[in-house]
Amino acid sequence: MIYDLIIIGGGPAGVTAGIYAGRQGLKALLITKSFGGQMGLKTVEIENYPGFEHISGLDLVKKFEQHLRQQKIEALADEVGKVVKSKEGFLVSCENKGQFRARAVIIASGADPRPLEAPGEKEFIGRGVSYCTVCDGPMFAAKRVAVVGGGNSGFEAAIFLSRIAKKVYILEAAPKVAASQANQQIAKKSSKIEVITSAGLKEIKGKKFVEEVVYEDTGVKKSHILKVEGIFVEIGSVPATGFVKGLVVFNKKDEIKIDPRTCATKTPGLFAAGDVTDMKVKQIIVAAGQGCQAVFGAYNYINKKSVQSVRGIF
Amino acid sequence: MIYDLIIIGGGPAGVTAGIYAGRQGLKALLITKSFGGQMGLKTVEIENYPGFEHISGLDLVKKFEQHLRQQKIEALADEVGKVVKSKEGFLVSCENKGQFRARAVIIASGADPRPLEAPGEKEFIGRGVSYCTVCDGPMFAAKRVAVVGGGNSGFEAAIFLSRIAKKVYILEAAPKVAASQANQQIAKKSSKIEVITSAGLKEIKGKKFVEEVVYEDTGVKKSHILKVEGIFVEIGSVPATGFVKGLVVFNKKDEIKIDPRTCATKTPGLFAAGDVTDMKVKQIIVAAGQGCQAVFGAYNYINKKSVQSVRGIF
Repeated sequence: MIYDLIIIGGGPAGVTAGIYAGRQGLKALLITKSFGGQMGLKTVEIENYPGFEHISGLDLVKKFEQHLRQQKIEALADEVGKVVKSKEGFLVSCENKGQFRARAVIIASGADPRPLEAPGEKEFIGRGVSYCTVCDGPMFAAKRVAVVGGGNSGFEAAIFLSRIAKKVYILEAAPKVAASQANQQIAKKSSKIEVITSAGLKEIKGKKFVEEVVYEDTGVKKSHILKVEGIFVEIGSVPATGFVKGLVVFNKKDEIKIDPRTCATKTPGLFAAGDVTDMKVKQIIVAAGQGCQAVFGAYNYINKKSVQSVRGIF
Repeated sequence: MIYDLIIIGGGPAGVTAGIYAGRQGLKALLITKSFGGQMGLKTVEIENYPGFEHISGLDLVKKFEQHLRQQKIEALADEVGKVVKSKEGFLVSCENKGQFRARAVIIASGADPRPLEAPGEKEFIGRGVSYCTVCDGPMFAAKRVAVVGGGNSGFEAAIFLSRIAKKVYILEAAPKVAASQANQQIAKKSSKIEVITSAGLKEIKGKKFVEEVVYEDTGVKKSHILKVEGIFVEIGSVPATGFVKGLVVFNKKDEIKIDPRTCATKTPGLFAAGDVTDMKVKQIIVAAGQGCQAVFGAYNYINKKSVQSVRGIF
């Protein structure tokens, strides 16, 4: 059995691709570890997806997943290990549930949180170090925590944590934070949030759980220790593309280069949509729009191919 | 007073641009005759805007408008007559409410229904000839009607009308209809819908109101008369771009050519998004995604310009 289309990823791009694949009558399989992508990690209400004035990330994820489940397409909870070209199209290998064949593939695997690469980080994952504030934040009620990263996601994480924790530090390596004025204003109004700039992260320490974070004031080269029990990493993301090397071209950020009109990659039949691509604007509504465009790209590709193969017989 | 940004149009692209303009803190004005664009004309429930499994076009329009009204941007009910370049940016002239100045402009004026260009068409507009099935269809209860156009919008209009009218003809000029298999199946199940292909529209006739439509069987060159009281025109659309000639490049379909990554047109500071552009996939979710991208295009343009003008002083 061969699918018309395999969609890799369950964020806004992947789910939209799934909805459109179903509506186009494609025999499609969507493979994702979990639904929602980075929407599920949002610490503040989503207010910029048109049609919903205010909605939590998790609620929007639920609505997307429900919408997808209405379609006549299959969904599989697994992680993709490898995509290779085959004679008929592509062979997609999952970590657990085997291999699947498809005429076309849409990569919508999004991006993973960027790690700090600091001593102690890996040892304390799940024991104080977190890459998902909305998931793990509630465990830090009345505790002292640090958010690493002074961009919008760092500030939004700190604002979220300030309603739970006793004290929230924002550590930013640069001399200035990059968050929007709006987020800076909200943070300023909170007595719990303290912003520390020029803070180069040195080490995360503790016995069984995180107890302190060491940073250097990069201006005067002096080290400081903050007593915290939680460290939330919010320093951007890395596209999830390991499984597709060789079939696509990457830009400097390791994003997949696409034709923005069809979402085509350099390999015919292989498309990409959402945060995994080199499109500049990383927003839910943009990723969803691309998921739709990628399906029409794939649909046209499949139809053209099937006409060719019929011709080939005669 | 000069706006940072004027957005022309209130469909999915324009409203999304308005939401993002407000959130980016731009001083923005949105000018539109009415909200919703072609969403408001949809005759079937919208089932392909992710997050809403089923919603009527008018309900989704309401949700979009409400979402926009939450933002700190102005909205003006008017039609744009002309956009011209000025020293500081653009001068936008409205039909009724005067002229407005802006540093940047986003054209999101969508597309208007394509007319038949048949004798009798203009005379009977509002007296049997309609370009908005969802608006005018309910007036044809238990009457005989024809839909001109055998694409998806024609079939969807006919399916909608079949719940109201006594008889619904679909007239398609080509030898085959272009609607999806799904829509063709639904139409086939209705005893009221009759599809006539190779039907070249000749004339619309009547006294005060439409009484009949004349078409030629283009295969055998024979004329036929259908007794109908309503004619619903569903033969595609024409981009609404008359007000911006000279500032943009058009493709063969009169769509505005854009850089799909920034939505920039050939004139710096002038952006376009949605169905008015040369993007192939005309869907609500794609238009909305482009509205968002256009705001970031305009935002970056405005910031770069303001840095340049500050530098110019010194």
